[in-house]
Amino acid sequence: MVLARHNPQSWFTEYQTDSLNLGFRIDEILLHEKSPFQDVLVVRTETYGRLLALDGAVQTTQGDEFVYHEMITHVPLFMMAAPKKVAVIGGGDGGSIREILKHASVQEAHLVEIDGRVVSAARQFFPEISCALDDPRAQVHLADGIEWVRQARDYDLIIVDSTDPVGPATGLFSPDFYQSIAEALAPGGILVAQSESPYLHQALIKQMANGMRTAFSHVRLYLAAIPTYPSGLWSFLMASQHLPEPHARYLTTKIATRYWTPHIQSAAFVLPRFVEEFMTCDG
Amino acid sequence: MVLARHNPQSWFTEYQTDSLNLGFRIDEILLHEKSPFQDVLVVRTETYGRLLALDGAVQTTQGDEFVYHEMITHVPLFMMAAPKKVAVIGGGDGGSIREILKHASVQEAHLVEIDGRVVSAARQFFPEISCALDDPRAQVHLADGIEWVRQARDYDLIIVDSTDPVGPATGLFSPDFYQSIAEALAPGGILVAQSESPYLHQALIKQMANGMRTAFSHVRLYLAAIPTYPSGLWSFLMASQHLPEPHARYLTTKIATRYWTPHIQSAAFVLPRFVEEFMTCDG
Repeated sequence: MVLARHNPQSWFTEYQTDSLNLGFRIDEILLHEKSPFQDVLVVRTETYGRLLALDGAVQTTQGDEFVYHEMITHVPLFMMAAPKKVAVIGGGDGGSIREILKHASVQEAHLVEIDGRVVSAARQFFPEISCALDDPRAQVHLADGIEWVRQARDYDLIIVDSTDPVGPATGLFSPDFYQSIAEALAPGGILVAQSESPYLHQALIKQMANGMRTAFSHVRLYLAAIPTYPSGLWSFLMASQHLPEPHARYLTTKIATRYWTPHIQSAAFVLPRFVEEFMTCDG
Repeated sequence: MVLARHNPQSWFTEYQTDSLNLGFRIDEILLHEKSPFQDVLVVRTETYGRLLALDGAVQTTQGDEFVYHEMITHVPLFMMAAPKKVAVIGGGDGGSIREILKHASVQEAHLVEIDGRVVSAARQFFPEISCALDDPRAQVHLADGIEWVRQARDYDLIIVDSTDPVGPATGLFSPDFYQSIAEALAPGGILVAQSESPYLHQALIKQMANGMRTAFSHVRLYLAAIPTYPSGLWSFLMASQHLPEPHARYLTTKIATRYWTPHIQSAAFVLPRFVEEFMTCDG
């Protein structure tokens, strides 16, 4: 999660934990620099196309970004009749904004990214992911998400599309931040946050869920299979003051997707027994 | 898939393809030898406990074996009223037999493994996986699965629990073999075969499905999240002469599981759109 090592001649390897790594054969390093916030690396992998890593951790690849971006956005959006105002905290590559703007009801999609270098790297090297940042309904704020959310109001959906809970993203995993989001949401609004791997990060997921429960009445977990993230199985926590039915209720917008379907939306909330168990037991 | 490299001092790395690898920090090599069929390696990893690799490819680990073994067995078994005779081709670690014997209706569970060294390594290093091989209902045949199936008859379920389609397992992916299995099944019988990753092996999955369609009326794909297998998402092909309803119809046996639940059984057949699409389009 924290160590970045790459051999310029052939491989980029993410040390996902001290004891696990995932390596990608690469044929080119396109960008490698230190921003004021983190190490920013763009390489071209043979298997998944271009790959963006921050502080050595894979954030997005051309080959599988569709899974993460579709599942963090469409699952909550299809549970609302006509979402109008949406914010993404983090997510500087713009992929979540691209998916959000597929929904015709959305009037404003705000991207709140602390590191402008991530946005510019995405514009330069991932145009098919960042393209919607130029949509007139999109607004990019280069700002600290924690500060920004304090003044935000009346959002139908706030998405925490963060890096891992180390470095610049640490505060995005705190109960205080979830409380600010609760105050920034309109009645019936929904929070969704990426919540790491149910195989590798169970303590973190429980801690996040408990933090959300201090500010929200209902918290649910759902899953998606993302091959370039640790363990290949990723989770998302959804919080709301009302119990959201976990299926796609409002299919008024017809959108092009590669992972999401109305049936996948429901199936994503069906948890393997070991996940059900660690989410329900205390301690 | 075919290269095995490991540094005895610290890491076992599987080259899942020429361009992807997954590395595990290890603290001990417990067994490393050439059997008449393949390279057999048992190491202790920090993350997933003991790990068995054949020809350098991860077959099973103590930490996540439950996913594969539960999903390759319980999904078909809970679709049958009272399965009595079951065979596993491959699967020398015994994990599939262990799960099959949780079903009280099963009278015979046959393991057909070509490589006796895999069975003995499992008995020595994975007693919690291989334990059920000593059950009086279990019969171990050290034999070529292709030959063995030709004389088999009246099986309710045949599971192809094979290695990758290289080396000794190649013939287990051929249409002729599926035809032999069709003849070995009782009326209403089911074939299930592990069918690799929907992210990395789409051509193989389609080829297997097409091969099965020459011998069976109905073929379905289902999925499970297995962190130590390439991409973390794994698939299973199910074939039958009758259309099996993809949910758990017969919950007469109550069994202890860690991944499978009746809801997971149904959700496993819900495919992401890109999987639906490559499974339905021709070519």
